[in-house]
Amino acid sequence: MIWGVAEDVTCDAFLGGRLQILQPRHGYRAGVDPVLLAASIAARAGQSVLELGCGVGTAALCLGRRVPGLALTGVEVQTEYADLARRNAAANDLPLEVITADLRTLPAGLRQRRFDHVIMNPPYFDRDSGTAASDPGRDTALGGDTPLADWLDIGARRLAPKGYLTLIQRIERLPEVLSALQGRLGSVVVLPIAGRTARAPGLFILRARQEGRAPFCLLPALETHIGIAHDGDKDSYTPLVGAILRSGADLPMGR
Amino acid sequence: MIWGVAEDVTCDAFLGGRLQILQPRHGYRAGVDPVLLAASIAARAGQSVLELGCGVGTAALCLGRRVPGLALTGVEVQTEYADLARRNAAANDLPLEVITADLRTLPAGLRQRRFDHVIMNPPYFDRDSGTAASDPGRDTALGGDTPLADWLDIGARRLAPKGYLTLIQRIERLPEVLSALQGRLGSVVVLPIAGRTARAPGLFILRARQEGRAPFCLLPALETHIGIAHDGDKDSYTPLVGAILRSGADLPMGR
Repeated sequence: MIWGVAEDVTCDAFLGGRLQILQPRHGYRAGVDPVLLAASIAARAGQSVLELGCGVGTAALCLGRRVPGLALTGVEVQTEYADLARRNAAANDLPLEVITADLRTLPAGLRQRRFDHVIMNPPYFDRDSGTAASDPGRDTALGGDTPLADWLDIGARRLAPKGYLTLIQRIERLPEVLSALQGRLGSVVVLPIAGRTARAPGLFILRARQEGRAPFCLLPALETHIGIAHDGDKDSYTPLVGAILRSGADLPMGR
Repeated sequence: MIWGVAEDVTCDAFLGGRLQILQPRHGYRAGVDPVLLAASIAARAGQSVLELGCGVGTAALCLGRRVPGLALTGVEVQTEYADLARRNAAANDLPLEVITADLRTLPAGLRQRRFDHVIMNPPYFDRDSGTAASDPGRDTALGGDTPLADWLDIGARRLAPKGYLTLIQRIERLPEVLSALQGRLGSVVVLPIAGRTARAPGLFILRARQEGRAPFCLLPALETHIGIAHDGDKDSYTPLVGAILRSGADLPMGR
């Protein structure tokens, strides 16, 4: 156990209080990113969703809250995070099945299943070029041992025909992601995410489709904050991002 | 000869009249794109520049007009365009050496040279997936026989240590370009070019560096036109693009 006593876990509200998430106080903590990822998934009731590296379940549960009637499955290698994900699913009354497994050695039962959507928020830092975090759980979540190309390969293999793979990642790794998908999935759409107007984007959401044949599309950047600089302690989310974070609004990835 | 009489060639002003360019009336005609490409090159007097597929020389000559003291070389496979490029260089008193050659079989003398900058505006359409243009010269310029990955490979081979490769291309082909450069050139910067605010970009300029080690950077999109829709016959370039097209201003590719 990374944390053994109640004080080492916090309960945080997401989607304006529609979702309560237990997460380690000092480990990897979900921020805006999994909420944006979940908001970008155009899923319909009856569809199946697999999240690779689901952590405490934030993205999958945000999606489940926004779109009722999904069959949600999450895979998480760290036992403590997987256990919290199960507790979070139960406490929020959402149907998330959590499988404790390493991505690279998925159980046979899961390897026989295909999903309408595969989603992921892979570690942002390359272990080989970064410094380990002081907390081992946070370290695995921030810069895991699995190369990004493997995440994409493993995700692509779990897609149903015409299924969608969607990830959120640092913009620095866009060339690596596009190269890994080249000739593999199609209809690639990239949404850059910028902190403010006229700033270079720091993140992107990418969606690709099994058997997709539409040309690559770069969408106009999503700006998360109003204005060109931080304005003291004022909450300055743009209206769309505010609606996503507080009301569970959709994030359009359309052309 | 595609055109044999004077009426088949037009003389067009670029950079607010600082440059006069002869080009075929019915073949491939230079527009805004080579001017933007030239404006993005941070070249200094004394440096060498190679343009692959220089056509009638528009990009190289725009760059030569903006930055005095460059050694400019262009390669063009179509004899008629190469001849016009030489006439354009002479008429504008700019030092552009034009080599008539296929990119894939460059003369030995050129294959022994390295350049501080390699620039290119490769055909926008993949021959295999497009319809040939009615004019054979325009057809070669719009959808040549040389795959885009070969343009990049040939260009990268001609770079001096720490030299820059810069191209302008349709946004649909960004994944193909990034994949071809992956592990080859570094410090990749992409500037998306959008017609108007909140429109998806249709073009991009990419700059990469021999031996570059900086992380990938996606710049905020350059908007070419003011407003969200075409406003009748009013000229509506944004101030920066207007200054580039009419006054030879720089297009910053900085981080």
